[in-house]
Amino acid sequence: MDLKNWIRDIPDYPQPGILFRDLTPLWKSPEAFNYTVDSFAERFGGSTIDAVAGIESRGFMFGVPLALKLDLPFVPLRKENKLPPEVIGVDFELEYGTGRMEMRVDALEQGDSVLVVDDLLATGGTAEAAAKLIEQVGGQVLAMAFVVELDALNGRDVLEGHEIHSLVTY
Amino acid sequence: MDLKNWIRDIPDYPQPGILFRDLTPLWKSPEAFNYTVDSFAERFGGSTIDAVAGIESRGFMFGVPLALKLDLPFVPLRKENKLPPEVIGVDFELEYGTGRMEMRVDALEQGDSVLVVDDLLATGGTAEAAAKLIEQVGGQVLAMAFVVELDALNGRDVLEGHEIHSLVTY
Repeated sequence: MDLKNWIRDIPDYPQPGILFRDLTPLWKSPEAFNYTVDSFAERFGGSTIDAVAGIESRGFMFGVPLALKLDLPFVPLRKENKLPPEVIGVDFELEYGTGRMEMRVDALEQGDSVLVVDDLLATGGTAEAAAKLIEQVGGQVLAMAFVVELDALNGRDVLEGHEIHSLVTY
Repeated sequence: MDLKNWIRDIPDYPQPGILFRDLTPLWKSPEAFNYTVDSFAERFGGSTIDAVAGIESRGFMFGVPLALKLDLPFVPLRKENKLPPEVIGVDFELEYGTGRMEMRVDALEQGDSVLVVDDLLATGGTAEAAAKLIEQVGGQVLAMAFVVELDALNGRDVLEGHEIHSLVTY
């Protein structure tokens, strides 16, 4: 199944010069959406993962069904001021703009091996922030899984040392 | 299974006087989380639903796995400026503050019967906004499903005429 058939190109969104990869057709197709989650589950089922962390909010859409399928805890990595205390946070740069990511300090156990899930790997800034948070509370990143990887933005370089698994590359 | 065992009370969050019902323990328990999704699936499996709509972002966490389990399209109802055009939007009031919800105009087919999913029913303002969007594009709301309902805030009154299904009531 070629997932690109369920990904729509939107030119000049959200800013001029940006080609946005829109996943709404994929969410609308239970076949393609289930195939996506199953692909991750096939890759990471049987791995020594203690938790799946999803990055708000499109990472929730893939991380949650994967965690449920693998029978693992789901840890939300959220935007600022969305989680009740006690949280830790980290600032990071996005492909366009900046952001702050937060995580509950009790989200993981010491030494937990975590799979980070997001919809898209662009510059790697968001995923790097996720890794920092996980490591700050004593966890370790086993791998990072993305539906889409934008090759030209070299996100892999920023995430060197982590296994990167993406289903579709542009 | 009593889901209240996986819901934590956080007093005075996000504002003094608000008792926040924190679902992070539920997300951390694959048993409780799968039970939650299965409970919705048992209630709505076999209904004539054409799509599941989830409200950003905690509604995504329950709406997505439910849509995948029922083999139905998932429609995200998102915060402002998150979806590429063409979208329609509606302003609404929250338990604390205001918001704007958006939906792609091509998210549904004419006459589609939609199940709206969110984590929590408070004043009903968010769910009412969801219903307005769905009806504006020619869909109809079959029912609304929530994990938690805050009875004292009378959200059901605002949503009169819609079937409300909640798993836990405070």
